[in-house]
Formats: sequence, C-alpha cells, structure tokens
Amino acid sequence: MPQFLDTSADDFEMGFAALLGAKREDSPDVDAIVADIIADVRARGDAAVLELTAKFDHLELAADQLAFSRDEIDAAIAEVGEADRAALELAAERIWSYHKRQMPSDESWTDSAGATLGWRWTAVSAAGLYVPGGLATYPSSVLMNAIPAKVAGVQRLAITVPTPNGKINPLVLLAARIAGVDEIYRIGGAQAIAALAYGTKSIVPVDKITGPGNAFVAAAKRRVFGKVGIDMIAGPSEILVIADKDNNPDWIALDLLSQAEHDETAQSILITDDAEFGRAVAAAVEKQLETLERSAIAGPSWRDYGAVITVTDMDQAAALSNRIAPEHLELCVADPEALSLKTVHAGAIFLGQYTPEAIGDYVGGPNHVLPTARSARFSSGLSVLDFLKRTTLSHMTPAALRAIGPAAETLAISESLQAHGLSVRARLDALND
Amino acid sequence: MPQFLDTSADDFEMGFAALLGAKREDSPDVDAIVADIIADVRARGDAAVLELTAKFDHLELAADQLAFSRDEIDAAIAEVGEADRAALELAAERIWSYHKRQMPSDESWTDSAGATLGWRWTAVSAAGLYVPGGLATYPSSVLMNAIPAKVAGVQRLAITVPTPNGKINPLVLLAARIAGVDEIYRIGGAQAIAALAYGTKSIVPVDKITGPGNAFVAAAKRRVFGKVGIDMIAGPSEILVIADKDNNPDWIALDLLSQAEHDETAQSILITDDAEFGRAVAAAVEKQLETLERSAIAGPSWRDYGAVITVTDMDQAAALSNRIAPEHLELCVADPEALSLKTVHAGAIFLGQYTPEAIGDYVGGPNHVLPTARSARFSSGLSVLDFLKRTTLSHMTPAALRAIGPAAETLAISESLQAHGLSVRARLDALND
Repeated sequence: MPQFLDTSADDFEMGFAALLGAKREDSPDVDAIVADIIADVRARGDAAVLELTAKFDHLELAADQLAFSRDEIDAAIAEVGEADRAALELAAERIWSYHKRQMPSDESWTDSAGATLGWRWTAVSAAGLYVPGGLATYPSSVLMNAIPAKVAGVQRLAITVPTPNGKINPLVLLAARIAGVDEIYRIGGAQAIAALAYGTKSIVPVDKITGPGNAFVAAAKRRVFGKVGIDMIAGPSEILVIADKDNNPDWIALDLLSQAEHDETAQSILITDDAEFGRAVAAAVEKQLETLERSAIAGPSWRDYGAVITVTDMDQAAALSNRIAPEHLELCVADPEALSLKTVHAGAIFLGQYTPEAIGDYVGGPNHVLPTARSARFSSGLSVLDFLKRTTLSHMTPAALRAIGPAAETLAISESLQAHGLSVRARLDALND
Repeated sequence: MPQFLDTSADDFEMGFAALLGAKREDSPDVDAIVADIIADVRARGDAAVLELTAKFDHLELAADQLAFSRDEIDAAIAEVGEADRAALELAAERIWSYHKRQMPSDESWTDSAGATLGWRWTAVSAAGLYVPGGLATYPSSVLMNAIPAKVAGVQRLAITVPTPNGKINPLVLLAARIAGVDEIYRIGGAQAIAALAYGTKSIVPVDKITGPGNAFVAAAKRRVFGKVGIDMIAGPSEILVIADKDNNPDWIALDLLSQAEHDETAQSILITDDAEFGRAVAAAVEKQLETLERSAIAGPSWRDYGAVITVTDMDQAAALSNRIAPEHLELCVADPEALSLKTVHAGAIFLGQYTPEAIGDYVGGPNHVLPTARSARFSSGLSVLDFLKRTTLSHMTPAALRAIGPAAETLAISESLQAHGLSVRARLDALND
C-alpha cells in the first residue's frame, strides 16, 4: 500500500515530512575501490583498462579493439528494424529542434564610462558520454546526452559503453550514429570514467563527462570532478502528478507506474483535490500491477515510496509540489498553464492530460536528464549550456580607465592588495602626464 | 627566478607540460574533521554552532546573537569613510548593470506537430554566501557573490562571516547592505556551511551556497553538495598576460604581481613574441618586489610558479593560452579583439593595455569569481545563471499526441518499459475510439 495523506488531517505535516525525508538512495560505498581503479588507469593506461574490462565484462580485447570500428557499427545498426529506426530519427529531430533554441547569444556593449563589456560563449572541446550496459541500456539517453553536446558545437564526442560478454544493443550504436558521436569505446565502470578523464594511449582525454551509471560510475564521476566537468549525479527517478477528478484514473495510474517501473527506489506521488479520485487511481495501479511486465520492480516502488495526497485546493497542491521539487511534474487539471506558474521548483512540467511523462522521455523535445532528490530547487535538466562555457570580456579606453580606475585603486588599497592598486595607478599617472 | 621557456627550444614541450602540471594546490586533508563537524551541527544545531564558534573564533555567543542586528550593522558601517563608500557603490552599480544583462528569457512555441514546448527560468528561493574572515576578507567578493543572486531574484540571501575575537571588517557589512543581503551571521568554517545547508533553530536552511573559503570550507561545500547546490571549488588565482613589445614593462610586471600577491601558490605567466621584452618585464618584476608590501607572498609565487614564454607569433600564443585555459587573460597586443577570438578557453579576458586585470576585480562589471586550475575548459565564472534554474514545459494536444505518440510507444517497448508505452497507448486508443 502506498501512503495516503490528507492535508486536513492533524498528522499530515509529520507524514509529509517523512515522505520528503525518505532515504531512497541505495548506493553502496564503493569509493575506495573506485579510487584504486582510477589510480590504476592513470598509472598503467590501456593495460589497466583492458585488464579491468576482462575482469568485469568478461571480454578480452586488444588495445586496438577498444573502439568500435566503422564496419562494426555499420553491421550492428543494419540489424535495427524500420519502426525502431524511424522512431529514433523522429526523437532525434525533435530533441535537436528543442535544444537548438537553447543556444545563448554573445553580447557586447559600450557603457557610459566608455568601457566595452560583454561575454562570449564557446563549446567545450571534447566531451565523453557514459552509457550503461546490460539491462538499463537506453538508446533514448544516448540521444538526450549527445544531441545537446553536438548542438553546442562540441568537436569531439566520445561514448563509453560496457559490452558484457561482447554484447551490445544495436539501438545504442544507431542512436550514437544519428546523434553524430565521433568515437565509441566498449568499456564501462570506473575504468571508463578514468580513461575519459585522464586519457590513455588509445583514448584521448575529454573535458566534460556526462551520462548515468551505477554506483561505481557515480563515485568515479565525483572523483574526477575538477579535472573534468561532470553533469549531475542522478538519483532514483520521481514523478508527481497533480490531477483533479476530471481525469481517467487508468491513465494517471499508468503515468505513476511509468516511473515506478524504472527502479524499486523510484517514487511516484499523486496529489488530488478529490479523495475518491485518489482511491480510484490507487485501485487502478493495483490492477495494472497484476499484469505489468516489470511489476516486480514497480510494485515495491509504489508500495514503499508511493503516496496519494488529498488537498483542499490546487494552491495547496502547488505549495506541496514546491516542497517536493519533483523531477517530473504532470499537471492534469483544468488550467495547467495557470497552475504551472505556481509550481516553480520542478525539473520538467507536463501540461494537460494528453501529455504523459513518457512523451518527454522520448520524443517531446526537452531533455529527459533531470534533477532528482529535490535538487530542482537549485538545478536544471541537461541542456546545451552544459557543453558551453562563457568568457567575460572587458576593454577599457584611457577615458574609461580615468572614469572608474580610481575607485578600483581605492578598493584595492582597502583590501591591502597594493600591486592591484599600482597596476591601475601606473596607467592613470601615465595618462595624466 | 621564474621559468623562461621558448617555443623554438627543443625541450619546450617538456618544460611547458611541467608548467601545466605543476601541483599548486595546498589543501590539507581535513575531510574527516569536516564530516564530524557537519554531523555535530546536524545533530545538535545551534548548540554545536555556538560551541564551535567559541572554540575556533574565540567568540562566546548566545543563539540570539548569531545574526548581526540592524543596529550593529548601522553602527559598523557608519565608520566607513566616504571614499571607500563611494568606491563600493560605484562597483556595485557597475556589477549590477553587467549582471542584469545576463537574465535569460523564458521561451514558448508551438511546433508543426501542435505541441507547445518551452522553458521557464525561476530563482533559487534562498542562497547562502560564505565570506572568509581574517586577512582575506574581501568586500568586493561580497558584491560579486550577492549581486548576481539578487539580480536573479533570490528572495532570501544570507551571509556567514567568521568574526575572530568579535572583529568584523565594516566594509564587508557595507557591501552586504549595498547588495541587499537579508541576514548576516557571525559564524564561519565547516559549521557555517553545515548550518546553511541543514539549518538550525536560528538559521533557516538555504538551497544554494556560494563563496570562497579555506580548506575546511571547501571540504564542507563538497560534502553538502547534493543537499544544496554549490558554486565551484576555487583554487589559487592565475593570470596569463599575452603582450607584444609595444607595452610598458612596468605595467605588465604589476599585472603579473597583482595575481602573485594573492597567494604563494598563485601563478602568473607572460607570453610574448619578443624575448627582450620578456626579460625587461622579468626585471621590472624583480624591481617591484623590492618594495612591494606583500613581496613575501608575491616573491615565492613568482619564483616558484611564474613563467615567461617566448613564442614566434601570436597564433602560437593563442594555442598555448588554450592549453593553459587561464582564469584571467590579458591581451596587450595591437589587435586584442582579433586575438580574443582565438583564445577560447579563459574565464575572463581583459583587452588592451588600459585594462589591467585589477579593474575586473573591482569595478569593471563582470564577475571576479572565475574558474581556476584549467577548469575554464569546461566551466564559467559566477553569474546570474548560478542562482536560477530552468523548468522545461511540454503541452500536447490530442493531435500532437497522435502525431508523435506512436514513436514514443515504439521506443518504450524497445527499452522494455511497458508502463511508459501503455501510458501513451491508453490515450491514443481513447482518441481513436
């Protein structure tokens, strides 16, 4: 049974706080192992990567087999059926169109002091994308990570994907081909992150690493952060659905289950202003669970972390939503636009009953890599900006320096930074001669 | 003696690689101590913060004295002289004007499938700014951290600043007042970071923490990352000056020293196409060091980490600059705009000989919190964006769902995520009835 909460009950605040605070992370402490793996790859390069791949992925490779060849990729993607290919291409096209609009502009202006100021955006030179192997290998994630990098203008985009026993999902290779990925390496785990960050003889290092992974990958990303940039460390998936009674309970139940089926620690929450509708959705979830392929995952997720919360009105729903700061937020209400203006802490909002969250996972256009674990309070989903950096620009004329230089000198002296002050003063004196 | 390198020498690549790889970080491993402090503050709240403040800052406080009162702030800033106040106000005004232009726009559009897509930027609700105490207390850093937050629309901005033996720099309080800071707490160290991240009875937790600090503060920020957002972990300061012979060697020497005087592990590098000019600058540095107030800091920095590199032309200078990816880059050449288009990996660029880097530290307008340790390859200086997050928006009509829903269903099935597929299929079937 999921939790049933009602804001008009006396013990609501206690129950809601417990829901917010529920410890869902299940990451074993693998930091010491990961530190050793990274040190080994730094010290021995390819040799270490090859040994670790043989050990963990049961795959014996030579250094010149680390990367998939063009022929290997061609052969694998030839296996993909037409429907899958067309679906991936539609998804790629829509993701590309959405992300193209995220490209920020450079600015330059001259102010009243005569100073020319501005900034310029440039792309990270090389990025690495980690793709999990095994069951959780999602071609859609390849598109979601690779396309923003390519839109940003990243010149060199490398993928690492473990291929246990040599097996690879051809859709992953096709997604990489469609997205314009330049290199694909058949390695995984902390050793792949170390190779991307520090480089080996066969793998040129990158500047930024993104993409999901298991506890080893997450720990390795934390460790190489600083040497390279990383995206977020994602936690279990979450959905919050805010729905009034004018919805089909079956649809809402499926939306809740589409997060629950990801992971036993995923969290699905319904907020409604109609208690009876809430019970109808909970009943529909139970019914679906009877036949759902992944009910062994979705069931525990729903029972352990799911919740149905009854509120008195939608303003209350918005306030609770902001405390939850959900990764995914569906607004199945009469005026979803109006409500969306109040739900300000959310990774992605899906408006109206014809926008199931699954649309956003694949073909909507926005990114599906989104902030989890309440981090939507302070962070955003993956975007083109993650593969760009901004350089600020300042250009003083002699007149501009005369206008604002003395204030800089004053502040430098107040901070006891004499050389700072002198570097301004020397120029001012020359101008005054 | 700084290093003298020449790109035409046989051993240049070895020397340059050594320069790039020089280990300048001097952060003791304080992680275990910091973990204990954070756990203590989480467990005991105010009581722990007060005890740690008594221990580390030699300051006995009651819980209701943690925050500066309005009267205390008024009294302190009344001591500030008119020149300092005017300089701070000019700096604040220019920083505000620059950062206001960084506000990104919300977007919304309807595409050919009939899907309405877009995104919306909203501010982080509450931010905390760490301000170091003691010698390195820089009012300019208060402005540089607080103003972007306020421009972004952060509703609640709290500062923590340790006041050893009760001493506070009145300019810090004035900078906070000018920038619109809402709360100022007289605490520091890892206990301040813990209090901001987790909250105590007297200190409401924030969502994002920025600002520089010592090794304890840096380790605490790393530890609370995820619970709250943080800005970068800054390393020692750096400057790269690219200058031709048509420059005054004294000016360039002072620019190099204005980074060197920050820290013994700061790094100042000159690249020039004229070896003789390079030697003249090095001589000017030595001469300035004879009288510089902070020569005990700037001298070791210059001798241990400084370098003068001679190149054959400015294209070579740009290529080396991109490998260094400097925090600060001065372009003192005939056509700095043209060269700036080639120096793409840099935190901030200062163009022309009348733009000493010190202008950017105080009154230029751009932020002085910038990526160090080669991280300008993948990250940017502090900006309004650090205090905003973006929520993506999708709204499907029935027609839009009919157009793109089947592709989502296909991809969901290929990824074995049945509930994802069913959540789309249930709606499509209803529309087709």
